[in-house]
Amino acid sequence: MSTPEQMIAAVHAYVAAFDAGDPELAVAIFADNAVVEDPIGSEPRVGTDAIRQFYTESMATGAKLHLSGPIRVAAAHAAFAMQVRLHWDGTDMVIDVIDTFAFNDEGKVTEMKAYFGPTNMSGG
Amino acid sequence: MSTPEQMIAAVHAYVAAFDAGDPELAVAIFADNAVVEDPIGSEPRVGTDAIRQFYTESMATGAKLHLSGPIRVAAAHAAFAMQVRLHWDGTDMVIDVIDTFAFNDEGKVTEMKAYFGPTNMSGG
Repeated sequence: MSTPEQMIAAVHAYVAAFDAGDPELAVAIFADNAVVEDPIGSEPRVGTDAIRQFYTESMATGAKLHLSGPIRVAAAHAAFAMQVRLHWDGTDMVIDVIDTFAFNDEGKVTEMKAYFGPTNMSGG
Repeated sequence: MSTPEQMIAAVHAYVAAFDAGDPELAVAIFADNAVVEDPIGSEPRVGTDAIRQFYTESMATGAKLHLSGPIRVAAAHAAFAMQVRLHWDGTDMVIDVIDTFAFNDEGKVTEMKAYFGPTNMSGG
């Protein structure tokens, strides 16, 4: 069972990966066979190679994550609200997002889902 | 497919149900066979009768919901951050919670999960 401390540290490592603009730091929080569904309802990215490609592309926008409020932790799960601030197609954008992480016994993320849609996007 | 407007309205109806202290108003947002997992990792409540009993007990604590930031909406899903303020065992409490809702084509909630744990609770 992952501890709350491990799960909270994983979320902070994820935020720090975007700060550093280093996809490998994001990849490092995931289990080998993890599933990333970002946004929820889109085609899931499965496994390390697909996840690396996804975060490489995401970070190429200059996206930075700004937590909004405390990280929620329950059983083997974490959820957190944030603003994603990025530069897309010539425009500064802010997207209000909630992410959920599910963890395995080693404290690695096995499943990530991101909740946001058009109503959560605004130009800067 | 549920529209963003339907999903946002369902979240506001859920908050209003707690404001009114009326479990039937909460039950009304759910599909007949819905699953409520609150907190995530606990035994799910399945179906209208179990969901009614759960919200009757929850509202007996005087719990009120205060949204923290915008409701996130994606595909057939919503997520929202909030504070639950309640009176439990002689003490005022605040719990930081994130809920996720999944919707059917009629705009009813089929699955609800609540993310919070001991690290998200504080005495008032």
